[in-house]
Amino acid sequence: MPMAIFDVPLARLRERGSIKWRRFDADVLPLFVAEMDADLAAPIAERLQRAIALGDTGYPEVPEYQAAMADFAGWMWGWDLDPAHAKLATDVMTGMREAVVAASEPGDAIVLNPPIYPPFRAISAGRRTVEVPLVDDRLDLARLEVAFAVERPSVYLLCSPHNPNGTIHTLEELTAVADLAARYGVTVIADEIHAPLAGAAHTPYLTVPGAANAYLVTSASKSWNLAALKAGLVIGAPADLARLSPTMSDGASYFGVLAHTAALREGRDWLAGAREEIAANKVFLAEEIARKLPQLSYTPSEGTYLAWLDCTPLGLADPGAHFHEVGRVRFNLGREFAPETTQFVRINTATSQAILGEAVDRMVRSLGA
Amino acid sequence: MPMAIFDVPLARLRERGSIKWRRFDADVLPLFVAEMDADLAAPIAERLQRAIALGDTGYPEVPEYQAAMADFAGWMWGWDLDPAHAKLATDVMTGMREAVVAASEPGDAIVLNPPIYPPFRAISAGRRTVEVPLVDDRLDLARLEVAFAVERPSVYLLCSPHNPNGTIHTLEELTAVADLAARYGVTVIADEIHAPLAGAAHTPYLTVPGAANAYLVTSASKSWNLAALKAGLVIGAPADLARLSPTMSDGASYFGVLAHTAALREGRDWLAGAREEIAANKVFLAEEIARKLPQLSYTPSEGTYLAWLDCTPLGLADPGAHFHEVGRVRFNLGREFAPETTQFVRINTATSQAILGEAVDRMVRSLGA
Repeated sequence: MPMAIFDVPLARLRERGSIKWRRFDADVLPLFVAEMDADLAAPIAERLQRAIALGDTGYPEVPEYQAAMADFAGWMWGWDLDPAHAKLATDVMTGMREAVVAASEPGDAIVLNPPIYPPFRAISAGRRTVEVPLVDDRLDLARLEVAFAVERPSVYLLCSPHNPNGTIHTLEELTAVADLAARYGVTVIADEIHAPLAGAAHTPYLTVPGAANAYLVTSASKSWNLAALKAGLVIGAPADLARLSPTMSDGASYFGVLAHTAALREGRDWLAGAREEIAANKVFLAEEIARKLPQLSYTPSEGTYLAWLDCTPLGLADPGAHFHEVGRVRFNLGREFAPETTQFVRINTATSQAILGEAVDRMVRSLGA
Repeated sequence: MPMAIFDVPLARLRERGSIKWRRFDADVLPLFVAEMDADLAAPIAERLQRAIALGDTGYPEVPEYQAAMADFAGWMWGWDLDPAHAKLATDVMTGMREAVVAASEPGDAIVLNPPIYPPFRAISAGRRTVEVPLVDDRLDLARLEVAFAVERPSVYLLCSPHNPNGTIHTLEELTAVADLAARYGVTVIADEIHAPLAGAAHTPYLTVPGAANAYLVTSASKSWNLAALKAGLVIGAPADLARLSPTMSDGASYFGVLAHTAALREGRDWLAGAREEIAANKVFLAEEIARKLPQLSYTPSEGTYLAWLDCTPLGLADPGAHFHEVGRVRFNLGREFAPETTQFVRINTATSQAILGEAVDRMVRSLGA
């Protein structure tokens, strides 16, 4: 298998101005924030270059992103999505917040599953968060029901696939969620930004039998590395979409619409290649850890390019901070995702095996220091 | 003077996918939404092409937009702006809404000056709008004081320069506003998106003697035609910035930051050329109207590329709809800006004189039809 997509030389990556390459000192190897160390897929680059050449830099009009997502969803998941059931949003987290505002009142209870992507707490501002932790990396359906029954939440924030650990929820689990949501009158708001990376193993929440009263929020930004080109989609039944703010779509960028549309329609081969390389990278990371850090154990995650690694056996007070300060390699810190997970780090594997190997070497050397 | 910037052939403009070129039928000449019929300034195009080539499509980190705005503000207005007093926002209207939320409670009174850019009403959602109309295109300071005294608003939304009519508020007027705001405890939120086009004749609200308790919201998007690349800045004193939502900056796009930074630092010659051509275009439009539609009279606006034209003498029920349906030329309709201004149209002059002349010809022909 040719290792092409993530084989970008480190010197070239260091020319970037984004968070991953500018937040920390230049001697720190960054494997934290969810940016990919890849060149843009050619059809996306070409579409943007064409818009630049045309001076086509105004406001989006044609619902091409919605149509492209529907086409992609049909192709990947057999999901017969009506493009009219999707509305533009600035990005996935802004769309999630808009759905929270539409589906709940200040002070309402809102359920989430730690460890969880930190903005889930930010978008719950003004609501009372009820935490139902994952158990062995999976949804705890029994405790979820107790939370629904006792706390009477307006909203359940589902992360699917789950970030940080990459869990793909099964159809059985999601069917149980839909059943509980219907029984207790809870609106499910599903973040599915990682879904194209998860592929056919993922089940879009809106295709789950019994799913209703729900918003699915998604984007091409994570799977094709387009965070710089803001756009996302909030998908739901017309009655649910009607409750969203009429200004919700104003923040989506036209360049985002163009780039994401090109990704979904013409970036499928690139995505397949990226998924293959990520799968291989996660196996490589597991092997490197087994060989060089045998105290630890990593089982490749299923649904994202993020590796969630338990460092408890190392006996460090704060492993992520130690690796950063002593090892000069930066991961996301476990405590960003839950107060209980300070012993974890989240490693971004959307990079070359050279960088992944160097990261493990830096972890090892930091332990000998 | 070479007419270069706005000399883009109509066939090439019609290749664009933005609102201006896709909202209406292809036989309708569009001079409505505030998009420019110009190619991108070369330094902006080059900066974006470099980011595309580098795959530099992650999240913004370096506060380069803030620094570039401060440098531009010092150069253009002698304004000693501290970049730390500026925060990223998705765009100007989103930033205005965030400031409204920070400075008022649901149900509070909020003052605005019709005729006004329509989103001013949308961002006032949940508040009680108090309208103090412009008189002879200028602020009515006496009625503004009455509104402040009687309605006790939390917020005054200042549009500076004013959209749709292009009025540049004088230092004396703005000083009176600052005095009233201080006296009645009103937060001023100023939309200055058109300010770089207005040039040195414009006074940034935060430089006005006595101005305090204020947010200035701005962006390079209008002056360099970068609506597709979302980014804006909310500027204010640290204590006022601290009241803004901590998630406000998450919606700004990195490509917006790159493009706007290039515009403010390296697009000054382009802006000077655009301003010259727009000034000439407004004179040309006035002459065309004087010659071909002598019932009407247009005095070039000062601060924007928008012409606000009173069509009352034509005796049409809805001039904008008539020009669209019969003349096949589309302007913004007066009623979008105030219920009282149905007899006005807003004409976008950031185009070629060929297109402006054709627009006037279509108005004339529609009257003979």
